[in-house]
Order: sequence, then C-alpha cells, then structure tokens
Amino acid sequence: MAHRFIVIIAGGKGERFWPQSRAAKPKHLLSVVGAKPLLVQTIDRVKPMVPAKNIFVITSAVQEKAVRTVCKGIPAANIIAEPMGRDTAVAVGLAAALVAARDPQGVFAVLPADHVIHDSKAYAGDLQAAFAAAEAAPVMVTIGIQPTEPATGFGYIQRGEKWKLCNRRQVFRVKRFVEKPKQDVAEGYLASGDYLWNAGMFVWSVSVVETALMRHAPALNVGLTAIRAALAKKRPLAGVLKKIYPKLEKISVDYALLEKATNVVVLPSSFDWDDVGAWPAVCKHLKPDAAGNVARGLSIVEQGVGNLVFADGKHLVTILGVDDLIVVHTTDATLVCPKSRAQDIKVLIKRVEALKGGSKWM
Amino acid sequence: MAHRFIVIIAGGKGERFWPQSRAAKPKHLLSVVGAKPLLVQTIDRVKPMVPAKNIFVITSAVQEKAVRTVCKGIPAANIIAEPMGRDTAVAVGLAAALVAARDPQGVFAVLPADHVIHDSKAYAGDLQAAFAAAEAAPVMVTIGIQPTEPATGFGYIQRGEKWKLCNRRQVFRVKRFVEKPKQDVAEGYLASGDYLWNAGMFVWSVSVVETALMRHAPALNVGLTAIRAALAKKRPLAGVLKKIYPKLEKISVDYALLEKATNVVVLPSSFDWDDVGAWPAVCKHLKPDAAGNVARGLSIVEQGVGNLVFADGKHLVTILGVDDLIVVHTTDATLVCPKSRAQDIKVLIKRVEALKGGSKWM
Repeated sequence: MAHRFIVIIAGGKGERFWPQSRAAKPKHLLSVVGAKPLLVQTIDRVKPMVPAKNIFVITSAVQEKAVRTVCKGIPAANIIAEPMGRDTAVAVGLAAALVAARDPQGVFAVLPADHVIHDSKAYAGDLQAAFAAAEAAPVMVTIGIQPTEPATGFGYIQRGEKWKLCNRRQVFRVKRFVEKPKQDVAEGYLASGDYLWNAGMFVWSVSVVETALMRHAPALNVGLTAIRAALAKKRPLAGVLKKIYPKLEKISVDYALLEKATNVVVLPSSFDWDDVGAWPAVCKHLKPDAAGNVARGLSIVEQGVGNLVFADGKHLVTILGVDDLIVVHTTDATLVCPKSRAQDIKVLIKRVEALKGGSKWM
Repeated sequence: MAHRFIVIIAGGKGERFWPQSRAAKPKHLLSVVGAKPLLVQTIDRVKPMVPAKNIFVITSAVQEKAVRTVCKGIPAANIIAEPMGRDTAVAVGLAAALVAARDPQGVFAVLPADHVIHDSKAYAGDLQAAFAAAEAAPVMVTIGIQPTEPATGFGYIQRGEKWKLCNRRQVFRVKRFVEKPKQDVAEGYLASGDYLWNAGMFVWSVSVVETALMRHAPALNVGLTAIRAALAKKRPLAGVLKKIYPKLEKISVDYALLEKATNVVVLPSSFDWDDVGAWPAVCKHLKPDAAGNVARGLSIVEQGVGNLVFADGKHLVTILGVDDLIVVHTTDATLVCPKSRAQDIKVLIKRVEALKGGSKWM
C-alpha cells in the first residue's frame, strides 16, 4: 500500500500581525492563538496520522532558522527552505518531488501552517477521508471549508454532483473554483449551500500531481527535473533550489493546476476553522474579560470595551477610556489601530519600511 | 536694601504625565515642553534676576536625587528635600525660614517649578514689579494670571480697587480668593474681567510671612521654631525636618494664609502661561505635522489627525486610522488614552498601583 505523507507549507510575509510578526517570523511562528506557534499546532494535529519521517515542512530561507527551532521531532532533512517565494504551484511541485523520492506511489496532503483548528478529532477524520479518496481514484482532493459568513477574503469552491462515499463521508465533484467574490456574490454563495471556502488543503498522489504538472504546467514540470535528479542522488537540495527557483514562474496552485483540471473533488469539512487573517480575528480565540477585552501579556484596560492588547515581556500596556482598539507592543515597536482598520496595516508597514533604517522593523 | 530671593517649589506626585512621570520624576523633571526639564526652564528664567546663591529649590525626598542632578549652578545647600509632602503652607514656612537665615529683611518669591512660560522678558518684568510691590509695603503680592478661557481647574483671585503703581504696573487689592468654580461660574468670572487665575506665585518679605504665620497659622509657626533654630546654628536640616514634618498640618498656603489675610494685593500678569496640567496640554507647545499630530521620539501616524505620541529611545510607535489619541511609551509601560479622557488618569494609576509589584511603575 502507498505511504501517506503530510507537507506543511510554512511561508508568509509576516505583515498582517506586525509588529509581532516580521519577515523572519510570520504568523505561523507566532503564538497568537494558543500557547504554541501555529506551525507547531499544525504538526501536533497531523502527528498521530503519519510517522514524523513522513512529515515535510516547506518554508522560506529567511524563516528557516526559526522554523527548525520550533519543529522539534521532524527530521532535519524534511525541513526544506525555498530560496525565495515562488507561490504555491512551485511549492506543490517541490512537495511532489520530495514525496516521490521516498515513495513514487505516495499520497500526500498539502496543508497551510497558519490556520487555527480546535477540533483535532474532526480534522483528523476529514483528513483520513480525504486520503481515502485520493487512494481510491486518480483525483485531486480538496478539503472545502463550510462557510459561516459571506466572506470576501477567500476563494470559493462550487461543489457539483456527488462523487463517492469515502470513510462514510460524502465527497463531491468540483464544478468550479471562483476567486474572492464581492459582498453580494458572497452572500449568494452562502445562501446556495453549494459553495465552500478554498483553504489551500489538498490531498493527492504523486502521480496525479505529476500528470497535472505535465499537462497544465509543462514549464514548471521541466524546471522541477533538476530537483528530482538531486533528490534521486540524495544530494543536498539548497544548491539546486537556488539555481532553479529564480527561473520558475510565480503562480498559485489553484490557478496553475486546480482550475484547469477536471479530476478535482471536494470533501466538505466538519471541523472548525479560522485563518486568523489579521489581529481582530485573534479575539475570537482568547477568553475575554467581563468588558469583552482580550489580552496577552501585562495589561490594564480602564473604562474600555472590546479592546485587544498584546504585550511582550514585562512591559505594561494600559488603555484608558477607549473601545475596540488594537494595541500591540513588542520590544522595538508598538501598533495602535482600531479593529475596523486592521486590514490597512500594509499601508502602515510601507511607511515603516521607508523610515531610515526601517528594515530593522521588518 | 533687603536682598531678593527666589524659592522654587518642586513637588508633585508625578501622576498626570504617567507613564513618563513617576513619583520620583514628576512633571517638573520632564522635558514635555522644550528641550530642558520644566524645573530647569524655571531656574533659567529667574537666574538673570538674583544671584544663584539666592535661589532655593524645595523638593521632596523621593525626587531629591534627580533634582540635584538637573539643578546645576544652584548651591547644594540651597536644595532642600522635604521628608514628606505637607502642602504649600508648610513649604512657604520653610521658605521663609531659609530666607530669614540669610537675610531677616529679605524679600522672596515663591514660584512653582512646573509651569510653561515662553515670554521670559515679560515674566521678568512682572516679577520685578511684584518684588517692588513687596518692598514698598508689608503686603502679600500675588501674580494673577490673565485668564484666557473659563477654566474650572484653577482657583481664582478677584481683584478689588487699585492699590499702587509698581514699576509702572498697576497692582490691585485682592477682594477674595475663590476655589475652583463650576463651568457657568467660571464663564461669569471670565466675562467680568475682575478675576485672575491663582497660579501659586507669591512675593513677600520674611516679616510679612512670619507675621501672617503667627496670626493665621500659630501651630505651624511653632512647628517651624526648631527649623529656624537649626538654620541659625547652621546645622544640617534633614534630621530636624524628619522630626518636625510629620507633626505639621497638611494645608495649602491659600487656605492657611492668603484667604485669611487682608493685606493681599495682586499684579495681573503680562506673560503667557500654561500649567500643562495633563498630556493634551502638551500639544499646544509642540509643532504639529500637516494633520495636526504632535510627536516626540520615533513615530508614524498613518491616516490619523490630532494625535499625541511620546516615545522613549529607539522604540517606534505607530498609529493607524485613529484620531485625537494620546500614546505614551516608556521602557516599562505604555499609555493609550483619548485626549478627552486624560483627566481620568488617576483612576488608571490606582489600578496600576494595585497590580502585583505595581510600585515599580510608580
């Protein structure tokens, strides 16, 4: 029987949780929710399903050191640093090559490192069912998240007719992938019941991915040849990645493969899920005080409701007479921003970057 | 001719500018306005008027070290630390004793250490006129500040009939002192043109103060005997102050002497004046950016107007999408508070004090 593998994609720019997050310390390395970094939480969730030697982590050069530090129990050779971000199609191609070198018949899940999922049991059940689906037929299995609101920040997957029962779970054919919709369109999606959020969770066999690469992304497929050769000869990857990566097209796996393929199926999720896209999302996961304030670290909120305070070390953050504000303190920088404006943080970060010596805050 | 002396009262609890101000570092030791601490600015203003040996600074034990550090040029023996705060009547009694030991015929000004006055020339002229008044007759001379708004945070002095011209400046008899008024009353005071703010600036001779103490505050006068004796014998004051102070009544000089005296005159001020009572008052004295934001230290305000940022050292404070907010950062604490709520900082400080180990932020 084919072996199962898990490939965790741990990338990101570290902007949305600035100043806690930095280029070298993006969301998946933060403990914004729970006591452990989100990457470690992700590994902890999948560890019961496959042996540690079958878990890979793909990260970026700038984050490699911190990722290796937190990924205790994962073999060092299974942590791969991309020399530069080349989006998810390339990462999936690299993942397929890594798995193929271990087991050409292998089946693997690609999972983001920075989502919050509390119900590990339901998550494990869904993932097992998705593996079963990928083992039952040459399909690309996506795990679609049951939407809970008309979100405009995610892509959607429209499910089609019933495909198969896998582990007693109904899997559907995929009718189409759609990009982030406008508000009214998203409301229609939610009402129809046919649409699921695309959370970048995929399960498939090496051969299915390789076939898709050959058919839909031939240039990328050729580009991967040198990587496959290095893996076959058990040579270290760093050198070849550095040589090959700059030439590869930066494109998402959705756009490069999934939207073009006809053998895509979707398993609607049964677990809770949150991508904690920005600071305000953190509030949902922490226990509020009586006035609905949420805090990590040393803080006092006097005459204020709905605030979020994140403080480092022994620094005391105090808030007086203000509501729904985000205050994040780190040793070298502070952010003060209403919850309603957290999405604009990229504009602010551009100004920080432009400061003299601004890179030290990046 | 009698010598002139200046006694600067440098006390305060250090609450209103928390977390920059602390018990050991109150407003007069901060450079909230201008490059130098307010106490040093006060000394700089009076230095041209009297020799340094005739300038005294009365401070508190907890502030003594910091006061001595900034008061360069003032003889060490002229800096006196009260072992505990006993309000202004006691401080004025101590001041009179200090001056009397140098010159029993001496005339002295009592001045607060923590006011902002930009027009040093007008200030010097007013002070010289007040000295002339105190030298012309046995009166208590107050310098009353011309009110610019119906403030409810100050006591007022109602002027009566014309008294004398001193240095070509009209001095008035004082009709009465009134406590901090309500808003509508304050508006009436402002409209009448007869009322001046009581800023705690007094000029008088040793004998006038001693006579008033004997008449209106006999217990305090007796309490001061031991201090006068120590000064006469040129013994160090620390021991006797420690022994006497706990027994002295805590009372303001306004209440103990001025409100009861009938020989009080007032010189309406001709200089600009601000007691910078709390963080929002700082804004008036710093140069705002195009959006009306005022900052000291490293900061970025993105999409916000009317904010005040005070940051220490190399820490970067960033504000995104919020208006009229005060953000103060120090190494160990941060304050975030709307300008409109700055008056409530005492409530917040009580909560900080109540924290485990809270005294380290005091």
